Amino acid sequence: MSEVQADLMDAPSRRARSGGRAARVALREAAPTADRKPVWAGLPGGQFNPLQQSDLLAIHRAALDLLGTVGIGEATPELIQLAATHGCRLNAHGRLTFPPSLVEDLLTKAAREYVIYSRDPAHADLHVGGNRVHYATSGEAVSVLDIEARRYRPSKLVDVYDTARVVDALPNIHQYGQMVVPTEIVDLVQADINVAYAILAGTTKPMEHALTAADALPPILELYGMIAGSVDKFRERPFVSFGGCPIVSPLRFAADSLDVLIATAREGLICDIAVAPQAGATAPTYLAGALVQVVAETLACLCVVNMVRPGTPMSFAAWPFSVDLRTGAFSGGSAEVAVMMAAIAQIGRFYDVPTTVASSMTDAKMPDAQMGYEKGITALAAGLAGANRVLESAGMMASLMGVSFEALVIDNDMLGMAQRVIRGIEVTEETLSVEAIKAAVLGEGHYLGSSDTLKSMETEFVYPAQADRNSAAVWAAAGSLTMEEKARQVAKGLLDGHFPNPISAALDAQIRDRFPILLTPDQMRPRG
Amino acid sequence: MSEVQADLMDAPSRRARSGGRAARVALREAAPTADRKPVWAGLPGGQFNPLQQSDLLAIHRAALDLLGTVGIGEATPELIQLAATHGCRLNAHGRLTFPPSLVEDLLTKAAREYVIYSRDPAHADLHVGGNRVHYATSGEAVSVLDIEARRYRPSKLVDVYDTARVVDALPNIHQYGQMVVPTEIVDLVQADINVAYAILAGTTKPMEHALTAADALPPILELYGMIAGSVDKFRERPFVSFGGCPIVSPLRFAADSLDVLIATAREGLICDIAVAPQAGATAPTYLAGALVQVVAETLACLCVVNMVRPGTPMSFAAWPFSVDLRTGAFSGGSAEVAVMMAAIAQIGRFYDVPTTVASSMTDAKMPDAQMGYEKGITALAAGLAGANRVLESAGMMASLMGVSFEALVIDNDMLGMAQRVIRGIEVTEETLSVEAIKAAVLGEGHYLGSSDTLKSMETEFVYPAQADRNSAAVWAAAGSLTMEEKARQVAKGLLDGHFPNPISAALDAQIRDRFPILLTPDQMRPRG
Repeated sequence: MSEVQADLMDAPSRRARSGGRAARVALREAAPTADRKPVWAGLPGGQFNPLQQSDLLAIHRAALDLLGTVGIGEATPELIQLAATHGCRLNAHGRLTFPPSLVEDLLTKAAREYVIYSRDPAHADLHVGGNRVHYATSGEAVSVLDIEARRYRPSKLVDVYDTARVVDALPNIHQYGQMVVPTEIVDLVQADINVAYAILAGTTKPMEHALTAADALPPILELYGMIAGSVDKFRERPFVSFGGCPIVSPLRFAADSLDVLIATAREGLICDIAVAPQAGATAPTYLAGALVQVVAETLACLCVVNMVRPGTPMSFAAWPFSVDLRTGAFSGGSAEVAVMMAAIAQIGRFYDVPTTVASSMTDAKMPDAQMGYEKGITALAAGLAGANRVLESAGMMASLMGVSFEALVIDNDMLGMAQRVIRGIEVTEETLSVEAIKAAVLGEGHYLGSSDTLKSMETEFVYPAQADRNSAAVWAAAGSLTMEEKARQVAKGLLDGHFPNPISAALDAQIRDRFPILLTPDQMRPRG
Repeated sequence: MSEVQADLMDAPSRRARSGGRAARVALREAAPTADRKPVWAGLPGGQFNPLQQSDLLAIHRAALDLLGTVGIGEATPELIQLAATHGCRLNAHGRLTFPPSLVEDLLTKAAREYVIYSRDPAHADLHVGGNRVHYATSGEAVSVLDIEARRYRPSKLVDVYDTARVVDALPNIHQYGQMVVPTEIVDLVQADINVAYAILAGTTKPMEHALTAADALPPILELYGMIAGSVDKFRERPFVSFGGCPIVSPLRFAADSLDVLIATAREGLICDIAVAPQAGATAPTYLAGALVQVVAETLACLCVVNMVRPGTPMSFAAWPFSVDLRTGAFSGGSAEVAVMMAAIAQIGRFYDVPTTVASSMTDAKMPDAQMGYEKGITALAAGLAGANRVLESAGMMASLMGVSFEALVIDNDMLGMAQRVIRGIEVTEETLSVEAIKAAVLGEGHYLGSSDTLKSMETEFVYPAQADRNSAAVWAAAGSLTMEEKARQVAKGLLDGHFPNPISAALDAQIRDRFPILLTPDQMRPRG
């Protein structure tokens, strides 16, 4: 054994056993409190800057060039009419072009931040903007991993509810965004209403879901009003951001989703879009070019909402994905996605608009080592770059096609680790510890049980819930489990037992009276 | 299915099948060449800076305070005598103190960079310094994972050779540093010689190993001279860095390793030390305080080598680890280690000295999701921060107590991903792709098979060797394997078949004639 290892192993066991015990007792006795956490929602990112200032300007100018020349195709008549009053024109190809001066003018009017509220003070409100970093689920996958069978089954409405309940119990995931679609519901408005209800019933965390039809907005607002007490109260403290995909890359509008975006903006609600071209297929292979295109596409959406209603809260949600050009397969867990999403966070700070990115994804099918490193690398890159909300950041598998309950449990530990790195190192006279070091060197010869250790051990260190840090012997005695096997147990426990039930019985009856709610009381009760 | 997903899935299959095929054909036909790689040794880091400039100055001043007052304990008579001629004094506690002006003076004389050469142009030389990032193994673990039995067995000499062979085949690991100790060899000098031989026989990559005894240096130099042609030729193009752990934290010298350090410095060889206190146990719990202590300890080593021989190449190898204060267990894969090691990279650039850090470690026992994210997060943080050599970066398991061949295979893919993120995004008129975007928008409507795609698909994208990016259906048809299961197959293939045999038979006979080499010819032949 090397001297490092001898030193590593001997320090706690040989030199300082009593100090260690004191420290452990202190840790057990000190109840965690809100102001004594090692990580929290809204940690400051932005320490990682992949682009130079000159790069930011070059990308901005190139995006303005595109918007002013080729513009965006397939604008709806409603948008063309509105945009014309702001100086936009259709070019010879019938595509809607945006003058550079208009884009820059609307950027000055754009919302700098927005708040997505929690329905319970136990969870944090999300103050989205600046350099504050939050992690959220999202994804609208179509399948769920059956981990024992190693296969993906179609997702159902109950999976929306179940994933919301599991996320409710995982502290390092700050928002529940819709993870799966109810594949069994055909009617779009009915699906939207039932998804909203399933999330509301599963968690009080800030939430997100995509509207598939503009027609769903009035009933959905009514539902949120019932939860909040009134629609006005909901507008005062909105607890939902509204997803959508108004762009088909390269540089075309998607009519239905554009309608939803305009309707949401008109209501002043939080427009939580995603613009998702794929470098190599629907965006250039050069990463810089993919950024130019996605920035142009996202600026077009920003122009739309600010023409509809200046200052409308909108996520600058440029999500440059990539394909694997060996096969044409979409890749969510690639290095290229990681660095492009980090660049987007930086571009969002350049524009001073709130960003969402999609990171912490994986192309793996099982919650294995590939999943671990693909998610770890992409989650850290996005957070360090200061993305305000990192979506798709937990539970997503298989290039966004599936969800795993086990992955949610694992990702919660991973996100806690990433968040601690993002938090960084506070340097003060106290934390520099010069006098404490002198005292230790001339005294005990270690720091276990020292007053500074007892004071800071809860706030300096993240203690993972599931990750194994035992010796190989202790690990073997506990059954030699992998992270996946531990996560199965934890996920099953949460699925069977964690029912926050945030909707009162009386209100639930009113909601079910008013809307065709499909989630059954049986699905909402503890199991096993 | 959401519109994002429809867009993601349809683009290659529906809109652009022929383009995708052309691209794939082009990729297969274009043989990779040295100047057309997506990642390489020495990528530029430093885009991530966890500390403010004022933090760097505060940590530096606090470290100087420690060195000038409590100093370092247990200096050897040889060092005390040498240091006295430079103005160092023993304080009232018999501890060697270093005047701040001396430390700053010796910092001006320190080597700014060094080169560890490859013995074969197929592998890169490591130009260590500046903001150039390399990844290396190291660790000197005492056990090896038997993955089928889920247990760790004691490591042997043949494991040094076998890990070197496997690393030889993995392109994203740039240096082989000694991963395991031969637990069956009792004599230290014999162990050192046999470890050196086992590495030399296993790979031509730049190498590192720790000397456990200063007495081993003369015969080891003779061995390297035989490999290089002469000792002078070895000195001209050294292909080895010499590890050691000259500090026992907090702030004491380790006599044997200090002797090795002084002997290595006297020879002008690359001093590749590791200073490894643990925050919470042998260093303060406050991360800033742990940095202050480890910087003081490492500066003391830098003073030693530069007093022995100014400009001696030395790694500024401050390795702040942490313990889990719930149990006292050492943690290598923690968030606190990730952010502290990143800070060390930044501090090394502040001093303009070559850094090594220990990152990409894990506390997991199996190559599972925990391993994946702990390694991914720590490997990326260290590289983005610009650490010149990231040691312990592949294959290490169980808080540095064990090695896994399967993990080496997985980590190679992980490191390729991390390196692609570190490389960043090149912004030029060509890569901004404005004209290419206009052409695609008004033409094909996609980029598959475009001239820019064919030109850049090999250089912009990293294609992982093992990571799965297939659809769930293709993955299921191929056996629904996890990354661990795939890595087992690949590791077994390399262990059975990859024998680079870089020592000629004639030279091997001479070496075996001169030294008591224990690795047998049987162990050095293809198996199975």
